Amino acid sequence: MSYSDTDLHTLKKFYEQQLLQDTVPFWFPRSIDEQYGGYLFMRDHDGSLIDDDKAVWIQGRAAWLLATLYNTVEKRQEWLDGSLTGINFLLDHCFDTDGQMFFHVTRDGSPIRKRRYFFSETFAVIAMAAYAKASGDEGIAQRARDLFGKCIEYATVPGLLPAKFAGTRPSKGIGVPMIMINTAQQLRETIGDERCDVYISKWIKEIETNFVKHDIKCVMEQVAPDGSIIDHIDGRTLTPGHAMEGAWFILHEAKYRNNDAHLIELGCTMIDYMWERGWDKEHGGILYYRDVYDKPVQEYWQDMKFWWPHNEVIIATLLAYTLTGNEKYARWHKMVHDYAYSKFHDPVNGEWFGYLHKDGSIAQTAKGNLFKGPFHLPRQEWYCMQLLKEVI
Amino acid sequence: MSYSDTDLHTLKKFYEQQLLQDTVPFWFPRSIDEQYGGYLFMRDHDGSLIDDDKAVWIQGRAAWLLATLYNTVEKRQEWLDGSLTGINFLLDHCFDTDGQMFFHVTRDGSPIRKRRYFFSETFAVIAMAAYAKASGDEGIAQRARDLFGKCIEYATVPGLLPAKFAGTRPSKGIGVPMIMINTAQQLRETIGDERCDVYISKWIKEIETNFVKHDIKCVMEQVAPDGSIIDHIDGRTLTPGHAMEGAWFILHEAKYRNNDAHLIELGCTMIDYMWERGWDKEHGGILYYRDVYDKPVQEYWQDMKFWWPHNEVIIATLLAYTLTGNEKYARWHKMVHDYAYSKFHDPVNGEWFGYLHKDGSIAQTAKGNLFKGPFHLPRQEWYCMQLLKEVI
Repeated sequence: MSYSDTDLHTLKKFYEQQLLQDTVPFWFPRSIDEQYGGYLFMRDHDGSLIDDDKAVWIQGRAAWLLATLYNTVEKRQEWLDGSLTGINFLLDHCFDTDGQMFFHVTRDGSPIRKRRYFFSETFAVIAMAAYAKASGDEGIAQRARDLFGKCIEYATVPGLLPAKFAGTRPSKGIGVPMIMINTAQQLRETIGDERCDVYISKWIKEIETNFVKHDIKCVMEQVAPDGSIIDHIDGRTLTPGHAMEGAWFILHEAKYRNNDAHLIELGCTMIDYMWERGWDKEHGGILYYRDVYDKPVQEYWQDMKFWWPHNEVIIATLLAYTLTGNEKYARWHKMVHDYAYSKFHDPVNGEWFGYLHKDGSIAQTAKGNLFKGPFHLPRQEWYCMQLLKEVI
Repeated sequence: MSYSDTDLHTLKKFYEQQLLQDTVPFWFPRSIDEQYGGYLFMRDHDGSLIDDDKAVWIQGRAAWLLATLYNTVEKRQEWLDGSLTGINFLLDHCFDTDGQMFFHVTRDGSPIRKRRYFFSETFAVIAMAAYAKASGDEGIAQRARDLFGKCIEYATVPGLLPAKFAGTRPSKGIGVPMIMINTAQQLRETIGDERCDVYISKWIKEIETNFVKHDIKCVMEQVAPDGSIIDHIDGRTLTPGHAMEGAWFILHEAKYRNNDAHLIELGCTMIDYMWERGWDKEHGGILYYRDVYDKPVQEYWQDMKFWWPHNEVIIATLLAYTLTGNEKYARWHKMVHDYAYSKFHDPVNGEWFGYLHKDGSIAQTAKGNLFKGPFHLPRQEWYCMQLLKEVI
């Protein structure tokens, strides 16, 4: 199959309508915390609050979303103000005295937990960069650039963050180059930063050289420092939806670089490999984890369907289709889109459920918790809407 | 319903046969690592090895099991020798230079990961205590007593182990008093230790006072230091199978103390509360997590059925029945026993699968991994067999 212009137009309208009349209104304005700043996102299916704690990743991601909507969709004052409350909460409460950010804080911003990753930082970078573009606030722009510099240090200087594992079996994950590519892309597209192009090339090279395995048609989630496969349970565990998210970051770069043929080939190959491993041929949907050699995975819930891999694969397949015209990607896009909007979407209260059993039934009803909030779904609807605006 | 003497006799034969002709032969002798010592337990459904790493908890648990079989079932030399290889591996490879034990090591005993808990230590205590009784090795007995002393320190001196969470919202879990009760009971029943009685009373009191909530008929998994409920996602999360494991440790103590009426009442009440919350009225089996107020749980896989809660609830209900004669416990025992042996047991290769979906279908096929090995199932079959020997 392929998508006609009418199909693409319909899709664009659909994503736009879902984003602006279903997803964003589920979260806003009710999630703005008028008392302490930031957002209250831990909500059940009907929007009722199940916890007033704040997940720092998601505070940053939501501030990014609101500023991005302001920058690219419509100059609504509520979006600009909404973004600022998140930025202020991050700056006032989410940095520890050692400069690292927390992962989980209370409603008033007291720290609950810090983790040994710097993803809170990367989401704060894109939030501040998008808000700085929206507001013209040069001070916030500088903080975004400084914090990006710190992320580069965390990503490149070994031992800067405490290690979770002993040194016996060193490994590296695809998550770091992936998040850094996306952070740099966002920074470049908002306030600009001359470091970005070189670093993006370097991190794409890292993925291509060390994580993409053509001999076994696979994108690894983690590998040894020399890129070899670590043949133990953890080392063998694949996350197909994550790898396909990495693929669309690379396809996005291909588009930015005037449809760079090598990057299109790389991104599409990553999708090809991981669609084959991730798509559930029995029930449809993207399986969360797979073992590279089809052995049992340590994580017993490996065959659940989570919302976010579906968002990432919807973007990846649509972007691959628009860049190549290959009908396979239209077919895959339609498969994952139809599965996701029929299984995850809540037509009663809006937004998506987060967690399905393998068979597609709902495993639990939270719309927001420590890991889920307004990010993957609205980003997908926004990205696909913008992409389709360009091609139709 | 109630169990007749014939029923109890049949059950005893069943558990004995499963233990000695199904469960233990799945693991031994093939899991003994002749090259490096210790055991190779990460195995798929057919016994094939999926990883040669070693989980320290399970090395200790298996050494305990083999010595316990030697002490209580039959003086088989292979069990005594098999226990010793685990003890030696623990002593030679599983202690860090700071005296803390590792959680996960390679086949040759190089460290992969240390965690901020002392459960590796408690399982090493019961392993060494059981082996010391079996062998008469006074040196190992002393090491067991010393390490138990260290566990008491970890359990009672705040700040001795690094904290996972910041100090904003202090909490304590039922896991610590539970594991300490069981460790002390094992120590007392093997090599004896005069500290045990007082500490066991103290830890039971701690559970009774701070974790059992009669007003809402619930046993909490964690609470604030003063015993109050922490009304946030983590604080509200219950683990019914774990609470019922705690219940049988208390019933075991009741039996040891000449059927102490107060402890019988306490243990049975804990079962009553948590059976109601944990038993899946739709599909049968014990749900892994529940929210105390029926809100969504953070852990998306909360409705899976794991093997080990079923082992613990089989023991708890059978022990409650033998102590009280209350027909309810015979009925519950039969429900959980029938569910578990029909859904988890692998009649082809022996032993149990570890992880079922809510509907009882198998989620993945590993018999052993970082968290599963020869412990909960053989302990249940052994404990129930011994218990039934006493009452029939």
